[in-house]
Amino acid sequence: MNKKGDFILKPRKVYDFKPKENLVYDAIIIGAGIAGFSAAMYATRLGLKVLVIGEMSGGKITLTESIENYPGFVSINGLKLAELIENHARDYDIDILTDIVEKISQTKSHKNLYIVSTAKKSFTGKTIIIATGTVEKKLNVPGEKEFIGNGVSYCAICDATTTKNKTVAVVGGGDSAVKEANLLAKYAKKIYVINNEPKLHAESHHLNNLENNIRKNKIKVLNSANIISINGKSSVESITFIKNNKTKKIPVEWIFIYIGQMPKIIGKELGIKTNKKGEIIVNVNCETNIKGVYAAGDVTSTSWKQAIIAAEQGVTAAFNAYNYLVKKN
Amino acid sequence: MNKKGDFILKPRKVYDFKPKENLVYDAIIIGAGIAGFSAAMYATRLGLKVLVIGEMSGGKITLTESIENYPGFVSINGLKLAELIENHARDYDIDILTDIVEKISQTKSHKNLYIVSTAKKSFTGKTIIIATGTVEKKLNVPGEKEFIGNGVSYCAICDATTTKNKTVAVVGGGDSAVKEANLLAKYAKKIYVINNEPKLHAESHHLNNLENNIRKNKIKVLNSANIISINGKSSVESITFIKNNKTKKIPVEWIFIYIGQMPKIIGKELGIKTNKKGEIIVNVNCETNIKGVYAAGDVTSTSWKQAIIAAEQGVTAAFNAYNYLVKKN
Repeated sequence: MNKKGDFILKPRKVYDFKPKENLVYDAIIIGAGIAGFSAAMYATRLGLKVLVIGEMSGGKITLTESIENYPGFVSINGLKLAELIENHARDYDIDILTDIVEKISQTKSHKNLYIVSTAKKSFTGKTIIIATGTVEKKLNVPGEKEFIGNGVSYCAICDATTTKNKTVAVVGGGDSAVKEANLLAKYAKKIYVINNEPKLHAESHHLNNLENNIRKNKIKVLNSANIISINGKSSVESITFIKNNKTKKIPVEWIFIYIGQMPKIIGKELGIKTNKKGEIIVNVNCETNIKGVYAAGDVTSTSWKQAIIAAEQGVTAAFNAYNYLVKKN
Repeated sequence: MNKKGDFILKPRKVYDFKPKENLVYDAIIIGAGIAGFSAAMYATRLGLKVLVIGEMSGGKITLTESIENYPGFVSINGLKLAELIENHARDYDIDILTDIVEKISQTKSHKNLYIVSTAKKSFTGKTIIIATGTVEKKLNVPGEKEFIGNGVSYCAICDATTTKNKTVAVVGGGDSAVKEANLLAKYAKKIYVINNEPKLHAESHHLNNLENNIRKNKIKVLNSANIISINGKSSVESITFIKNNKTKKIPVEWIFIYIGQMPKIIGKELGIKTNKKGEIIVNVNCETNIKGVYAAGDVTSTSWKQAIIAAEQGVTAAFNAYNYLVKKN
């Protein structure tokens, strides 16, 4: 936050930090969030030569105002926690590249080596740790795609300050929707929480804060309501939804969509197994069904998504990649 | 550390903090270390009424000089990390009691309530989270019991400063033994690492530090060596061991024993299942075989013991205790 209390998003770091195309890495970690950098830190401590390739340094947690449930920090800004974990990893000798991985394949000559390719480069690794996280689920209603950045947002902390004295909607009924509605209540004039289920399902801690905002007439919750369109000319002006079989329209200038996450899958070409939600299936050792390929963090089949789980899974994946290499040699 | 660079162990906190014998707690957490306080923090955030009963505030990690693999902290003193996590939990409204749990039983009238008893008090809980950690394995050789505190130690950080300019032995070949030998090298004149296996098995990070100390003639490693006695009059004067079928004796004034940990089991009277090592068997949700009873941290069957795993398991146990209560009501 700056002195006025506004949130400022720092530009994310872009790395081209010693990646070597001619080297066989012990572990290539795909993803540069909590899980990826925790894995990198631990793998390097175990003596492995590591390359981290990530699209966005810090990952999704950088979009969260405050994390209050990572043991050790009563309250910490998401970007700050990401930076601490990234710096922790960078305290060791790791290579990092900001880039998008397009494909993972196996070498023909050495069955147990993996080739990780971006648009222009390719790297060889003995093991792979997939820590790619998630992308936001879309509502898939008219107006959503058209108004992204002009009233449609998936990141309250990014756009909160521009909602000052405006009426906004938050779509969703889980932890993120309730938490971010409470954040927006510091800026917006009025917030409608549009939930398609009969009741909210969020941590009681967030619900207590919500109750306060409801009492102050800052927030109004509409349960069992389904958005059917986002309307406007050059930017969002209103939303249309169905509740109790009736179609209603309310004027809003911003709509924040928090209806869940979709795993960002890579490695399908290797035959990596996923569950019904599309998440990579891992066991307690963070092993996938492919030998030498591990997964950690929100991209996995873990039953819930938390920073502390991502950190633990990163460390566990690194530990088991190490054990695999020790046994192989 | 004080200004001289010596380690100082602060007196551990003793709590008698609002425990209520007449209340039915949502969760009684047994153990006040990383796992216990992480569970307490998370359970309270979820709206549960929580009692923590622990023998020693902070747990075993308080005996470690520096933790370098808890994601987010490049290096942190064990006691400091324990305090951060304890304070994190105490930021919420939890009850805490410093006491030793002797028994867990089920109520006769309400099958699904648990009674947790210490010597003088008993408390009722809807769920139990066991986070009791471990105790040190003993060598079980003559002299060990007799000289505890007079040359026999299980805690390098507690006794390091008293080894100044002395010759000492460290028994063990894993992470803890190697790490603590490196710590002792800052004080003692000479350190013998006595390992009963043919080679050491520690993180390469610790092994690198060890190599440095070996080069400086500070540390000498004796592999495949088995201690058979600890000798002295009023305090330790020497150790006797067998190596290559020969009995050898070397003079040492301290012997630090790091040969592993034994789980500190409670709840056997409930029929809680343990594995061959005596650890409580848990699944990924930290559930034991008894409904409503969870376990977290070093006491569990997790394949390795780390602060980050304990924190994650504490949080996971709390989350699943909460889910269990929600479904039950």
